Amino acid sequence: MNTHSYPSHVHLVEVGPRDGLQNEAQPLPAAVKIELVQRLQAAGLRHIEVTSYVSPKWVPQMADKHEVMRGIQRQPGVCYAVLTPNLKGFEAALADRPDEIVVFGSASEAFSQKNINCSVAESIERFAPVVAAARAAGIFVRGAMSCTVGCPYEGEVAAQQVGRLAALMKGIGVQHVGVADTLGVGTPLKVQRAFEAALQHYELHQVSGHFHDTYGQALANTLAALQLGVAQFDASVAGLGGCPYARGASGNVATEDLVYLLHGMGIDTGVDLEALIDAGAYISAALGRTSGSRVARALLARRAQ
Amino acid sequence: MNTHSYPSHVHLVEVGPRDGLQNEAQPLPAAVKIELVQRLQAAGLRHIEVTSYVSPKWVPQMADKHEVMRGIQRQPGVCYAVLTPNLKGFEAALADRPDEIVVFGSASEAFSQKNINCSVAESIERFAPVVAAARAAGIFVRGAMSCTVGCPYEGEVAAQQVGRLAALMKGIGVQHVGVADTLGVGTPLKVQRAFEAALQHYELHQVSGHFHDTYGQALANTLAALQLGVAQFDASVAGLGGCPYARGASGNVATEDLVYLLHGMGIDTGVDLEALIDAGAYISAALGRTSGSRVARALLARRAQ
Repeated sequence: MNTHSYPSHVHLVEVGPRDGLQNEAQPLPAAVKIELVQRLQAAGLRHIEVTSYVSPKWVPQMADKHEVMRGIQRQPGVCYAVLTPNLKGFEAALADRPDEIVVFGSASEAFSQKNINCSVAESIERFAPVVAAARAAGIFVRGAMSCTVGCPYEGEVAAQQVGRLAALMKGIGVQHVGVADTLGVGTPLKVQRAFEAALQHYELHQVSGHFHDTYGQALANTLAALQLGVAQFDASVAGLGGCPYARGASGNVATEDLVYLLHGMGIDTGVDLEALIDAGAYISAALGRTSGSRVARALLARRAQ
Repeated sequence: MNTHSYPSHVHLVEVGPRDGLQNEAQPLPAAVKIELVQRLQAAGLRHIEVTSYVSPKWVPQMADKHEVMRGIQRQPGVCYAVLTPNLKGFEAALADRPDEIVVFGSASEAFSQKNINCSVAESIERFAPVVAAARAAGIFVRGAMSCTVGCPYEGEVAAQQVGRLAALMKGIGVQHVGVADTLGVGTPLKVQRAFEAALQHYELHQVSGHFHDTYGQALANTLAALQLGVAQFDASVAGLGGCPYARGASGNVATEDLVYLLHGMGIDTGVDLEALIDAGAYISAALGRTSGSRVARALLARRAQ
C-alpha cells in the first residue's frame, strides 16, 4: 500500500473572473464581475485573479479592468491578482493596487513564436522590467508557464523545456511559477515530470498547478501533483473559460470539482462548497449557460429533488 | 518523489452495451447493439458486458438478450459477460453460452432493502445457487459490489461493509469482485479504503474498479486504484448509462477517457483509441446524443479542423 503524505491544506487561486471570463464569448457588465468576485471571496477563496491590464483592442472582455478592481469591496487576507502583459499594463495596474501580478511564458518555442512573435527567451526578457518594477513596489510576482505538457504546434513538450522556462523566470525575479497544462492533454506521469523540472529551480511552496479538463484528466493530474507535495492550484468557478489561442483547449478545471476532491481527501481549502456552488450558479445564469462543473450539476440536481 | 509500480497492462471491461444501454431512456434495435459490440471488439476490447437476463417487465431495454447474444460474430479471446439476477435468468443465459456471468450485491444495507427488498446477506444467499450452477458449467463468476463508497440512503459507506460483502461473495464462490462507486461520490482515499477491504478476501488480480464520473472524480479514483496495483476496470463507451436506482447517479466513466489516461501513463490496454472513438460516435449518433466522453469530444473536434 502506498502512503503519501498529502498536504493538510491547499491554497486555491480562483481564476474564473480573469482567465475564465476572458475566454467566454459573451461580454458581461463590470457590475456582474464585481458581484462574482465578492461571492467568491464570501465563499472563502483567498486568492482571486481579477482582471488583465491588456489593450481592449486585443481583449475587449477586460476593458473594464479599472472599474472592476475599484468596485470590489476588498477583504483583508485576500490576494487580488492581475495579469500584466507589459510595462504599460503594469503601470496601469499600479493605480488599482493589486497584491500580485502575473507574467507568463510558454514552455514551447513554437507556441511562443506563433502567438507572440518572439522566442521564449525574448518574451521573458521583455518581462524583466515588469518584474523589477513590481518587486520594487512590493508586489508579488507569479509566473504562468503555459504548454508545459503539450503544445498545439509541437505536440509533446519535454520536461527539459519546462525546466529551461522556470530557470528563465527565476533569472528575472519571478517568485512563484505555475505549471499549466494549457491544452489539457497531460496525464499524471507527464505532469509529474513537468513539476519535477520546475522544482529544480523553485521550492515546493513556490509552484502551483493549472490544469484544463479538456480531456477529463485535470483531477487525476491534480492528484499526481498533490503526491509530489504541490499545495497550490488554479481553478475556475463553473469551469469558466479556457485558452483562446489554443483551439479546442476550452475547459479550466472547475473550482467546485477540485474542492470536492480535496475535501473528500480530508484536505482543507477554507472554501464553503455550497457557497461556491451558488457563486458558480450566479455566473452561469449571467452567461446563460450550464455550469461546467460536474459537482455543481450533481449537487444542484440533488438540491432540486 | 513517489515511485509507484503501475501495472504495465490494464484489462478493460466494456460495460456500455449492458450497464450503459440499460440505463439509457431510448430503446435501440438489437441490430444496433450487435453492431456496437462488434465495433468494440474490433477496437481491441477483450471483455464486453453484453446484456442482462432479467424480465423484460422490469428492464425492457434488455428484452432482446437472446437476439443480441446470438447475433454477435464472436471473436476468439474475447470474454462475453452477461448479468444474471437469478436462477431463471441464468438458465435462460446458458443457451447463449456466456463466458462470464455477473451477480451483484450492495455494500449498503439500506440500498439493498430499498431496491430489492431484502438484506445484503439474503441477496447473496439467493445468488448462491446461481454461482454454483455457473461454476458447475465452467462459467466464470464476477460479483459487482455496488455502493462501496456512498449510498443514496445511508450517505457514507464504511470500508468494513465492503469487506463484509466481499466475504459473503467469497463464501458463495464468486471468483472476482468489482468495487463500484455507484453514486460517483468517492474520492481517492475513500476508494483506496474500499479496495483495501475487498483485498482482505480477494487477490489483487481478482478485484476491479467501477467508477462513475457524476462528480468528475472517476479518473482520480482510477489513479488511486492503480496505485494499489488494481489492473482491471469497467468503463462504458461514450459514457453510456448509469444507475437507474440511484437518482443523479448517471455517468459511467467513459472508456475513451480511461484509455487516454492509461495510454498517457504508458500502460497498455490493447485498445485502439481512434477505433474506440468511432464506436462511441456510432452509438451516440444512434441515441441522438453527444458523447459523454471528454476525450472523444476533444479528439473529434480536432479531427474536424
